[in-house]
Amino acid sequence: MIIDSLYEAVEKKGPVCVGLDTALDYIPKSVTQKHVSVEDAIFEYNKAIIDATLDVAACYKVQIAYYEALGILGLNAYKKTLKYIKDSKSITIADIKRGDIAKTAEMYAKAHFEGDFESDFVTLSPYMGLDSIEPYLEYVKNNEKGLFVLIRTSNKGAEDIQYIDTKCGKKVYDIVGNKIHELGNDYIGSCGYSSIGGVVGCTHVEEGIELRKNLNKMFFLIPGYGAQGGSAKDVALYLKNGNGGVVNSSRGILLAYKKQVDGELKYDLFAREEAVRMKNDISNAIKENI
Amino acid sequence: MIIDSLYEAVEKKGPVCVGLDTALDYIPKSVTQKHVSVEDAIFEYNKAIIDATLDVAACYKVQIAYYEALGILGLNAYKKTLKYIKDSKSITIADIKRGDIAKTAEMYAKAHFEGDFESDFVTLSPYMGLDSIEPYLEYVKNNEKGLFVLIRTSNKGAEDIQYIDTKCGKKVYDIVGNKIHELGNDYIGSCGYSSIGGVVGCTHVEEGIELRKNLNKMFFLIPGYGAQGGSAKDVALYLKNGNGGVVNSSRGILLAYKKQVDGELKYDLFAREEAVRMKNDISNAIKENI
Repeated sequence: MIIDSLYEAVEKKGPVCVGLDTALDYIPKSVTQKHVSVEDAIFEYNKAIIDATLDVAACYKVQIAYYEALGILGLNAYKKTLKYIKDSKSITIADIKRGDIAKTAEMYAKAHFEGDFESDFVTLSPYMGLDSIEPYLEYVKNNEKGLFVLIRTSNKGAEDIQYIDTKCGKKVYDIVGNKIHELGNDYIGSCGYSSIGGVVGCTHVEEGIELRKNLNKMFFLIPGYGAQGGSAKDVALYLKNGNGGVVNSSRGILLAYKKQVDGELKYDLFAREEAVRMKNDISNAIKENI
Repeated sequence: MIIDSLYEAVEKKGPVCVGLDTALDYIPKSVTQKHVSVEDAIFEYNKAIIDATLDVAACYKVQIAYYEALGILGLNAYKKTLKYIKDSKSITIADIKRGDIAKTAEMYAKAHFEGDFESDFVTLSPYMGLDSIEPYLEYVKNNEKGLFVLIRTSNKGAEDIQYIDTKCGKKVYDIVGNKIHELGNDYIGSCGYSSIGGVVGCTHVEEGIELRKNLNKMFFLIPGYGAQGGSAKDVALYLKNGNGGVVNSSRGILLAYKKQVDGELKYDLFAREEAVRMKNDISNAIKENI
């Protein structure tokens, strides 16, 4: 199961997930000036970041929105980036947050688990219900693929729906978490976690402890570290002995070079340095917890 | 405001929205055999359907999943299809159901309101909250764009989240509907409806009446007619005097030719016939209601 590969990667390299949310204005001029096409500039930049972080990143999360925003050329760069990560023997999470049903969901599953945009994991949004998740399960079962379903996010607007108090006393995100956890029971790897994981933002400490306890077979994709305000201490609450989740950082890593004098020239090395710093930061917080 | 253009189109042509969920196996062999590339086959097929239905369709909903499933070539066909609808002076709804926040949502807005994939309306999923809608509002305000946010869908799984009973006595979809309706207040056109519309499935009659009453400034995108089980009578409940929403049919229209002997040869004409039949069916049901 793909979740065992991801678990193993965290054991070996730590829980850092490098987020390739590559906006054009993140790329140093030295790179963009070399290329006529944005496709080539983005791909060169991503390649350098991947090469520099391969041994300290458990996986790469590629945020498709940044590529979609550039149309066909952007999606060509997206395609090449996914393939490059695969060829580098690492793991890809396509952050697509799709959510639809029936044949449309089958089409999204085909789109992101086969062909041009093939990825190991995809993120999904559950608003339409469990039948918006089911069409992906065939790939989880037969093709070594995995999911991360939005459970509880850490943005302010999360209150609008996820935090609604329900009649039964639970919050909406809690009910969603339990349903997805239950669905995951049929896809548990030898590591003890399911290939159906959850996206759980890292800025609410108490709920974090509660969620880690209740959803004990759910592997977490944890956004919000660094640029979005989450600390290593917060993150550590979601990881059992340092595993059970990956922690994403995008801008924190991609833009590390901007804090340095002449950082542009070694943007990939500063990205690596930040990934290493983040890994150690989380590792120390986990040791303090134990 | 774009909602006024859509309202006008419904006044002139009726509420039929032609859904271009163009799966490869929907396309007659006579078309696919002519082309080496799926991109060309899909585009020829869509073009013929658009040409044949232009005077009876209020707008076209293009379901991006079907195109994404074919990778870059599929998305080239998607791009050409949107442009062709625009050049034909009709209105496009990009059925993308995206849902993300902050800079990622800005990127999606850019992706689908500018450049290669520019559309008039997009559909959005609200699970992450109102701040997943806000980045699109700039385009609603300044660029004549519009939204349809998922409120209540008609699939079985809708019960899993949308139908949860909340502490305050309302269901989740009701709370979502009210929030989106309120947000829409700042973007109301001269027709009396907002450029922030809602997706409301058409198979639950009582809630339909209730929603139409409560969300009286919200223009509806109504899927579920025909192939998905909704009748003209159901649909009529969501339309005030025949306006206030568009009713989507995809397979019902695209595959009408398969019910005919030698239908392949005139697939576009049978699509047109079905669109006309559907328009009259809904129009009669509305007259009965009044």
